[in-house]
Amino acid sequence: MLVAPSGFKESLSAEQVADAIASGVRRVLPGAVIDRVPVVDGGEGSARTLAAATGGRLVERTVTGPVGLPVTAVLALLGGDAKGTAVVEMAEAAGLRLVPQDLRDPGATTTRGVGELIRAALDEGAKRILVGCGDSGTCDGGAGALQALGARITDSSGAEIGDGGNSLADVTALDLSGLDGRLAGVDVFVACNPHNVLTGPRGVARVFGPQKGATPEQVETLDAALECWAGVLSRDGVQPKSYDLATGSCTGASGGLGAGLAGGIGARLMPRFEVMLDHVDLDALVRQADLVITAEGSIDEQTPHGKVPAEVARRAKEQGKPVFALAGTIGRHARDVHDIGIDAIVSIVPLPLTLEESIARSPQLLTDAAERSMRLMMIGCQLGQVERSEPVPLLRSVS
Amino acid sequence: MLVAPSGFKESLSAEQVADAIASGVRRVLPGAVIDRVPVVDGGEGSARTLAAATGGRLVERTVTGPVGLPVTAVLALLGGDAKGTAVVEMAEAAGLRLVPQDLRDPGATTTRGVGELIRAALDEGAKRILVGCGDSGTCDGGAGALQALGARITDSSGAEIGDGGNSLADVTALDLSGLDGRLAGVDVFVACNPHNVLTGPRGVARVFGPQKGATPEQVETLDAALECWAGVLSRDGVQPKSYDLATGSCTGASGGLGAGLAGGIGARLMPRFEVMLDHVDLDALVRQADLVITAEGSIDEQTPHGKVPAEVARRAKEQGKPVFALAGTIGRHARDVHDIGIDAIVSIVPLPLTLEESIARSPQLLTDAAERSMRLMMIGCQLGQVERSEPVPLLRSVS
Repeated sequence: MLVAPSGFKESLSAEQVADAIASGVRRVLPGAVIDRVPVVDGGEGSARTLAAATGGRLVERTVTGPVGLPVTAVLALLGGDAKGTAVVEMAEAAGLRLVPQDLRDPGATTTRGVGELIRAALDEGAKRILVGCGDSGTCDGGAGALQALGARITDSSGAEIGDGGNSLADVTALDLSGLDGRLAGVDVFVACNPHNVLTGPRGVARVFGPQKGATPEQVETLDAALECWAGVLSRDGVQPKSYDLATGSCTGASGGLGAGLAGGIGARLMPRFEVMLDHVDLDALVRQADLVITAEGSIDEQTPHGKVPAEVARRAKEQGKPVFALAGTIGRHARDVHDIGIDAIVSIVPLPLTLEESIARSPQLLTDAAERSMRLMMIGCQLGQVERSEPVPLLRSVS
Repeated sequence: MLVAPSGFKESLSAEQVADAIASGVRRVLPGAVIDRVPVVDGGEGSARTLAAATGGRLVERTVTGPVGLPVTAVLALLGGDAKGTAVVEMAEAAGLRLVPQDLRDPGATTTRGVGELIRAALDEGAKRILVGCGDSGTCDGGAGALQALGARITDSSGAEIGDGGNSLADVTALDLSGLDGRLAGVDVFVACNPHNVLTGPRGVARVFGPQKGATPEQVETLDAALECWAGVLSRDGVQPKSYDLATGSCTGASGGLGAGLAGGIGARLMPRFEVMLDHVDLDALVRQADLVITAEGSIDEQTPHGKVPAEVARRAKEQGKPVFALAGTIGRHARDVHDIGIDAIVSIVPLPLTLEESIARSPQLLTDAAERSMRLMMIGCQLGQVERSEPVPLLRSVS
């Protein structure tokens, strides 16, 4: 059996979720062979989870936060077979959570701290750096990160531009000669949602600007600034001129951090789960499993759009394995997930309670729900065994 | 498949619960053969449910309520094979719900209306009368009911006693000569919780008095009064002297209504489900079923003590059939129900919400939860089928 859940936002890490589920399963099947793979998407908690999953370690650094104030951020140095790989979670240095409510202006926030964390990874001797996107509070096209790594980004007067996406409107030149030389010997992979692009009608300013605090006017200003930035990046950057940094897949990741790192340091932008599951052969574990259990805080209309349970189900279905998902909340249109390979959904909520109670009790609720699920499944198991000898009405009527 | 649920208190009748579950099952197994048996225990809603389940009808009567004010009560005249049978639900005429909060004194309330409903059943030509107990607001030992049927219950001055359990302390004689003559040709069955006895340490005054509004002193007074009443009933009543009307099984049903009807009119006191399932051959339906689904508003520490899911599971297990129970609330010690034959429990609550929301949306929540349950069970079914050809780790490890 494979248990491959997401973390529950503001409540449990993916490992904690996996452990809670496994405990519940063992109540019913004490001898079950259970592989646990905490799955992260690059957003909050990813670095910590990957460090724990690989037996690696965390390094703490004080870096420049999204509004310019110092923040304490962690960097993961993976262990085991993944030794030499560092994970930089952009949310640690420039996450929306770090932007005070009254300062939520994506035209002003910076990814400078992300560049500082990448430098920290170089200091630690990392040979591969995975950059996790998601939960970002910035929209500066990765300019801040590049500056922290030694790039000069200047306006028509030759002066270094200020922080934030709005300043990108003034950019006329990018000078990469001062980049940290150690980057040359290192592979950088950015874990992206492939649907996020830098500019245009489906660009990050329009799609994510409002939730980061931008007004409709700011959205338009920001989109124009990012377009200017894409032009300079393409002209002065390291990618071939044919590489589309404005509307190419992944370029919009984390407010354009994807485009910046691709154009500025030659980072490879990749679908997030390919990067975030790089340390584990999930497909091999799926192959060994008879059953796959996943979970997410909320299973809803967003789930099919690249959330952890969708990715787990996609891989399970490639090998014809059954999948069910435990959910803290079964939200709107949750049943749509049956179309993407999740065969069943289970609520962890045992009775009417508040969201706060549910969060506070979530490990217990998950364990209990996993137990209940296995008990119900074992009924099906018995019926299935009977069915092979003599068809019963329940199964005869399956359409 | 057999769907045999309880109603959900203050929310859905047992039929509504059964229909909601069946709808959810059909979403997954459109062609499933589903027998629906709404199960009632004699308490609130029993008469209406049995009328509907048998294709019978309801008769409305104005009778004396528990505090002496008139109340409108229904009586069920069953249909189909059960024609000629009437169901008198004591809660309709003397339920706790009918006693205003400020008048909650079990020493004062009367079952007179229950006797009036039995008379109404005789008026309608009933040849069998089933009396449903449960949810009562009285503790008069059935004296009021007997008076309404023509009995004279008198004190040492020869005067008719007043209403309520406290008056029973004064009773010196019971005269049954004026009983409604039609009772002679009719069988009366009282559906009881066998654990309820009239007097003593586990008597109704001590066990149920407090929840009906009695103070500790009133409980003692009432218990003594009921003991006096049991003596007179045994001496002047219709049962053989060996029949233990004070501490015999069922005598305490509905504040001693059981003892009164047994001693006064020779009613047969029986375990409630034997009476309330008299119209249907539940065991035969279990035999045909591959799977039994039951449900109750709350599955908790009370469930094993004679609640509907416990009875359904008991019968299912006699024939080795798997059972799962849907619950609006999975309460304390719910897992104890696995010991009494309920193989799995399913929460109908899909996300954090209030009790009021849960009640308001309960039909939809039940249907959705039934669908989710069947989807999960079908995963088990597939695994069970695989297992017969090649054992898989999930099943190998079943202990």
